[in-house]
Amino acid sequence: MSDKMNVGIYVFEGMTMLDGYAPLQILSFVEQFNTFTFSKEGKAVRSDSNTVLTPDYGFDDCPPLDILVMPGGGDVFGQMSDATVQAFLKDSGAKAKYITSVCTGALILAEAGLLDGHRATTHWAYIDQLAKYPEIEVVDERVAVDRNRISGGGITAGLDFALTVVAEVVSPELAQTIQLIFEYRPQPPFNTGSPETAPAEIVERVKGMVAERNQPLYEHLANK
Amino acid sequence: MSDKMNVGIYVFEGMTMLDGYAPLQILSFVEQFNTFTFSKEGKAVRSDSNTVLTPDYGFDDCPPLDILVMPGGGDVFGQMSDATVQAFLKDSGAKAKYITSVCTGALILAEAGLLDGHRATTHWAYIDQLAKYPEIEVVDERVAVDRNRISGGGITAGLDFALTVVAEVVSPELAQTIQLIFEYRPQPPFNTGSPETAPAEIVERVKGMVAERNQPLYEHLANK
Repeated sequence: MSDKMNVGIYVFEGMTMLDGYAPLQILSFVEQFNTFTFSKEGKAVRSDSNTVLTPDYGFDDCPPLDILVMPGGGDVFGQMSDATVQAFLKDSGAKAKYITSVCTGALILAEAGLLDGHRATTHWAYIDQLAKYPEIEVVDERVAVDRNRISGGGITAGLDFALTVVAEVVSPELAQTIQLIFEYRPQPPFNTGSPETAPAEIVERVKGMVAERNQPLYEHLANK
Repeated sequence: MSDKMNVGIYVFEGMTMLDGYAPLQILSFVEQFNTFTFSKEGKAVRSDSNTVLTPDYGFDDCPPLDILVMPGGGDVFGQMSDATVQAFLKDSGAKAKYITSVCTGALILAEAGLLDGHRATTHWAYIDQLAKYPEIEVVDERVAVDRNRISGGGITAGLDFALTVVAEVVSPELAQTIQLIFEYRPQPPFNTGSPETAPAEIVERVKGMVAERNQPLYEHLANK
């Protein structure tokens, strides 16, 4: 038996690939971790970048999870309303030592009750929706750490999230080493990564895109 | 016929997945781009994170490239010394309107002569190796833009790289919009993303890891 921790990254049709694959790349460099992906049926799925994601496992043969990583995407409602997915999370997911998310993956965990009683964050355009769950203390932070719950903000927060997971679970020194290997000294070409700093017309355009595709989510959460 | 630009990301056995998949995620959100992956034989490969990468094409059916994106990894020498790969680059790769790389992908392009006469950058631990090519002006920048050659630094530079590609090829406004969608306001948990800022013992450890696996590369380039 390996004494490595099992780190499982869930993958699903239409997900934002980078939400899961940025943490996957970082966490796979940790020798204390056995990092893998799993989908509902163990079959390949297509991400929102039209990329084929081939999982290592399905729900039925997924190793016991020490760390669950839940990515998000523009259609998380499909995962929130899938009884099989939610049942897996309430059973196998709830048993994980660390329950974590990137981007709108927090909403999928929230629906399963896995963030109740904890601080958590999500993509900036979905903060208001996560706040509909009364038992969650929603914060607008890059990475929110609350005991064994670790959540990241939108998409690219997966890098800061994964380094934080390494620092919390293994050691800050290893996280620092990986940060150097990954040459993570970001230089964003613009200052538009936040609704506070982006031009108003760009913020409104993105908010409109998000609203257009999320009516079922909004209706579902309106009654919380 | 689509009038979209064909953006092809090469994938190969042992590559650093994130080098290619971070740009893939960003570039796939550009409606002017037809973004896809391709491998030498059109078959799936395993990345250095042990992730199965399923390409859309092989060399034999790869659409004509408008933008070539070359990722890297710890074993780029395998691609530099593969006659079929190098022949593809010198033929189909050289015809691309934009020839680009992330991380040590620059060394693969360099070996094919595709960076001759241009400024280019690479992962910090490989800058000295890229500088062995006398016809390349090697710079230590996050993203180096020189006419139709665009290269990024190590791994995570793929984000800054891809946003720069969008700004250069399409428009700064679209790049700004995508930066907001991706919530790209990075907050690295440590200040160790560069050899100038990381503790000396961590820099030495990473340099040792890099040197250990790259003897064939060093021997090959020693005679340049």
